[in-house]
Order: sequence, then C-alpha cells, then structure tokens
Amino acid sequence: MEIKAKVTIHDIAEKLNITASTVSRALNNSPRISETTKKAVLKAAKQMNYQPNNIAAALRNGKSNIIGVIVPTADRAFFASVVRGIEEVANTLDYKVIISQSYDSYEKEVQTIEALFRARVDGIIASIGKNTEDFEHFKKAQQKGMPLVLFDRTTDALEVSQVMIDDYWGAYKIVEHLIEQGCRRIAHFTNPKKVSVFKERLRGYTDALKNNGLPYEEELVVPSNLQLEDGRASMEQLLQLKEVPDAVFSASDFAAMGAMQVLKERSIKIPEQVALAGFSNDPFTSFSDPPLTTVDQLSIPMGKMAAELFFQQLKTDPNKYIPQKTVLKPELVIRKSSLKKEAQLIAATTAQK
Amino acid sequence: MEIKAKVTIHDIAEKLNITASTVSRALNNSPRISETTKKAVLKAAKQMNYQPNNIAAALRNGKSNIIGVIVPTADRAFFASVVRGIEEVANTLDYKVIISQSYDSYEKEVQTIEALFRARVDGIIASIGKNTEDFEHFKKAQQKGMPLVLFDRTTDALEVSQVMIDDYWGAYKIVEHLIEQGCRRIAHFTNPKKVSVFKERLRGYTDALKNNGLPYEEELVVPSNLQLEDGRASMEQLLQLKEVPDAVFSASDFAAMGAMQVLKERSIKIPEQVALAGFSNDPFTSFSDPPLTTVDQLSIPMGKMAAELFFQQLKTDPNKYIPQKTVLKPELVIRKSSLKKEAQLIAATTAQK
Repeated sequence: MEIKAKVTIHDIAEKLNITASTVSRALNNSPRISETTKKAVLKAAKQMNYQPNNIAAALRNGKSNIIGVIVPTADRAFFASVVRGIEEVANTLDYKVIISQSYDSYEKEVQTIEALFRARVDGIIASIGKNTEDFEHFKKAQQKGMPLVLFDRTTDALEVSQVMIDDYWGAYKIVEHLIEQGCRRIAHFTNPKKVSVFKERLRGYTDALKNNGLPYEEELVVPSNLQLEDGRASMEQLLQLKEVPDAVFSASDFAAMGAMQVLKERSIKIPEQVALAGFSNDPFTSFSDPPLTTVDQLSIPMGKMAAELFFQQLKTDPNKYIPQKTVLKPELVIRKSSLKKEAQLIAATTAQK
Repeated sequence: MEIKAKVTIHDIAEKLNITASTVSRALNNSPRISETTKKAVLKAAKQMNYQPNNIAAALRNGKSNIIGVIVPTADRAFFASVVRGIEEVANTLDYKVIISQSYDSYEKEVQTIEALFRARVDGIIASIGKNTEDFEHFKKAQQKGMPLVLFDRTTDALEVSQVMIDDYWGAYKIVEHLIEQGCRRIAHFTNPKKVSVFKERLRGYTDALKNNGLPYEEELVVPSNLQLEDGRASMEQLLQLKEVPDAVFSASDFAAMGAMQVLKERSIKIPEQVALAGFSNDPFTSFSDPPLTTVDQLSIPMGKMAAELFFQQLKTDPNKYIPQKTVLKPELVIRKSSLKKEAQLIAATTAQK
C-alpha cells in the first residue's frame, strides 16, 4: 500500500491556482473571500481528503482556539442567538465555541468553569446564573490570565468587560407606549431575585408611570419566577382586584403568554380591555394570537460585541487591558396585543355598519 | 497570615456527622441522597469555602470527565431537551457536558469534532447534521477509542450505539388519527434531504393512507425546508389545487405553524375545514390558537438513554463492546387543531340554539 503525504492547503492552492492564504481564509469562512471561491475550495478540500490539522497548530502556539461560553440554558432563544453572534465572529478567526449550561445553579456554574479549565479553553464569555452572588470562580479565570467577558446578566463585582442592553430604557419606552395607547392602570410582572435586569425593568416601569403623572400602586406589581404558569397565576390574581388593570407589562414573554391564555379563556378582549406587552422578543411571540408586543434585546449584535471584546482582550497584554462596558439600546417590537387605539377604531367602524 | 489547609469532603462530612461518600454524592446531586441532606451539604460547603478539585482528580485518572455533545443547533427545543436528559445522567456521575453546534454544516461538524478532541473530552454524543454524507470525522473518535453514541439523526454507516424514535410509527399513528376524525384528503409537508427521519415520516404517511383505503396523491405531498415560511408557501400552493385538502400532516411543527397562519388569514376554519398536525411537540405548539396536534419525540428519555449507552461503553473494553440500537415509541399529542369531530359537534349544537 502506497502511503500518501498529507494534503495541505498548499496542495489545494496549487490545484485551484490561488494562494495558500486565500485557501486558509476560505476554509475559515472569512467574509473577505467570495462565496464562489469558498465553494470551490471546500469542494477541492473534500475531493482531496484534506484534514485540517488544528491540534498541531494549537499545540504549536499553546492555544486551543476554543472559547468557552457559559449560559443559564442554551435553549432560551435569547441565549441561543447571543451564542450565534459569538460564533459568527469566532469562525472568521478560526476559533470554535463550546457551550456549557449552568441551569441557574451556583454549584453547576462553579463546576462548569472547572470543566472549561480542563477543556483548556483560551477564555470565557458568560452570562451569570440567577442565583450566583459570589464570583470567586470567575476570578479564577482572570487569575489564569484568561480573557473573560460577561453579557446580559453581568456584575460590577468583577473588573471585566461587559455587554448589556439598557433594560431600564426598554421598559420605560414600552410603558410609555402603553400610556400613549390610552392605558391608565398598568400592571407589571417582575422577578424578585437580585438579577439586575429585572430591577432595571421595574425601575423603568416606575419612572415611566411617575413621569406621566400616573400613581405607582403596589397591588399592580406582581413578583414571580416569570414562567408561563407564573404568568397565569399573576393574571388570575390581578383579575380579582376591585379595580382590574387595563394593561400588563411583563418582564418576560413567557409570563405574558400565560396572562394571554387566562384572558382568552375568560373572553376578556386583548388589547381593548387589557393590553399586553412582554420582554425578550422570543420567537413564539410572533405566533401568538394576538401577536405579542415586546422588547427585542439585540441578541446577535450582543454576541458579536462580546466576541469582539474577547478577541481585543486576547490580543492585549493582561497588565495593560482596561475592561470596557458596552450598553446597547433595545428595540420596541409593537404588535397587536398593545395596539388599543387601532382595535377600538376597528370596533367602532364595524359597529357603525 | 495563617495558611489554611484546603477544605476536603472529609471536613464537610465531619462537620455534618455524615460519611464522606454521602457528601460526595450530595455534591454530585445523586438521586440517592435526600433534598434535605443535599441542602445541608451545599450550605456547609459554601460556608467552609470548599473548592472541588476536579482537575487533580481528572489528572490522576487521565480523564477530563467531560462529554462532548454535538447538535445541529442547541436552541431547537428538541435538541435542548435531549441535552438536558444527557446532563441529568452525567451529573450523577460527576461528568460535565459541553455542547458544540454544527449548524447542519459538514465543514463545521468536522471542525467541531477537532475542537472536542483538543478539549480532551472522554467521548462524544452526537446528532448528525442534515448535510453530512461522509462520516470519517466520527470514525476518528472511534479510532481514538472514545465512546461515541448517536441520537435522532443517526446513520448505519457507522458501527455505533444509537438512540432514535420510531418516526414511521409516529407518522402512521397521527395520519390514522386524522382519518378517524373524518379527513379524507390529507396533505403532507416533507423534506427532500437524505435525513432518514423525514423519509420515515413520509413512509408512515403513505402506509397509513394505503392501509385505510385512501389513495396516495403526489400533488398533496409538498417538499421544502420545513421552516415557518416554507409552511406558508406550501399551504398557499395546496389552496390553489382544484380539490383542496381537508387536512395537513407536516413533518415539522414550524411548517405546520406557517400553514396555520395562512389558513387563519383566509378565515378557513381549523379543524372544521382543514385539520392540522405537526411533528416534534415544540413548546410553542401549545401556545398557538388553536393549539397544534403533534408528535412528542421523548427528548428527555432519549438523552438519558444516550448517556446510559455512553457510560456503558466507557466502562467496557473497546474490543468487547457491542453497539446497541434503541428505538423509542413517540407519543401522540392530540390538541384542538385536529379534533374535527368535536368541533363539528359544537358547531351543530350552537346552530340548534
């Protein structure tokens, strides 16, 4: 049996009559290379049975070319999209992403970081679990000189680069929108945990009421874990008040969906009698009937920004690196569940006929 | 400054007056330990600043205690739940799971495996990407003596343990249900790729028609990528037929949701005029109006089974291991979108009043 020499990018370059660096960029899916070239390179690589030798490359430079990403759960659309954004940037630089889930458990988060150390990741991008109040495990990564970037659920207890959205602003704007639509008794579903995103959304809600001359009423602010079932229970609770609210702004889309189910079961009209708004722009919010008004958290840009901060730090001398905080403005997604004026107009027109 | 000796599980055991192995099991969240004990152990571990020394343990036995899981995308509810099932079993054995996404790209899948090798995983559990037709990268894992288990999207080209659901049976049963509900012209949304799950669902559809004396009509079988937009387009196409179908069985929930949108926009009654069924039991199918009938793929049990096969293989001499194929029966989830008889009965009762 003849032993063949291992196919290299130079062999592919020669066959296609292009440079080896073009082949390398094409294989790493660089945006600088045209789709046609990429296809030709991939086809040739496959035909010639090219095997990228990343391990050798990694061992040469002492790097694994792996970013460890920690998220509470990878199946939440928001976290999944952030990871997608991170991978888009990482892929162009021949980096791979591995994901580890903390399930919002402090113990699991600690174990996860230890596992990523064992996996020899070059650094970590993380969103902190809801129950984490001690950050020593993250400090360990910093002590190892690893880049560490936090996104969305961050903390000022660590000196790290962070990317977050302006939750206060998003909540403020959506409550203002409900007021513009004629709502005057706006309830809020919140989460009592110490996670700052929920505190910021509550603060946005409170300030929007105040600045528009509406009273803050404690009975209208319902704390829970913000899952679907919690939203159902919170809505049932609000419907038992002497004076029922005319709108609900939920800090989560899932809880808003639970409220929608309860209102529909009782034939309470959305948005005419109770307008609804959520937070996160989870894909299912566009499938519901009526579609749900919500706040988009710019997950893909957030992931890209986190990756860019990561690579910036990776290139910088750890002693000279100055952490950066980036705050993105979220976008309102206005849908039928809150468009009370339009719904009233349609109802009036229909009645006239 | 006094230097303290590192806290061990023996110190925690002494403090709580229990055995060290109970502490170890509690820290690894073993189901054999009561919740009360677990809480006490975790509290003591935190107070005493216990740091689990997994790296040392791993280096001792030459293992990383990490399972690498490859999925097309971690945000699909089905894959996310399978991973959850894998982690439930892995956690009891002090194993951590890291996830890597192939995005259904052959090249990314190859790179992903290389990255998992660099991360020194002890083995791999994977669902194959839609576009993969060459399996050399998986063979490499086997050549390294690593356990390899495939789930859902598997192949017989590799001699590996597999866990899958009986797609044929699920499709057959749901079409039979539509026939029982009085549907006679049942359309099917399918995917033309070589992935066996879609071929099996199509086969189940075809056989259910045949065994119930209904003709197979080519114009009623619409191939696409089965995303929401594809479902919309496929439904529009069916509505242009001379004889419109009275039911659609879609091989994906997303495409069924697209069909639902089109039918609602045109005020075509679901299920009275067109009954609908999907496949996967994605969480959003219970939020839609009407809720969607679908097939549950037993994702958590599938993940647990995959993990169990993994650990079985890990314990066995590679030369003596015999791969196993496990096929799970999926469950029908019957909801309003297909309950034509019930809807007709309600309509008749209302008309009489």
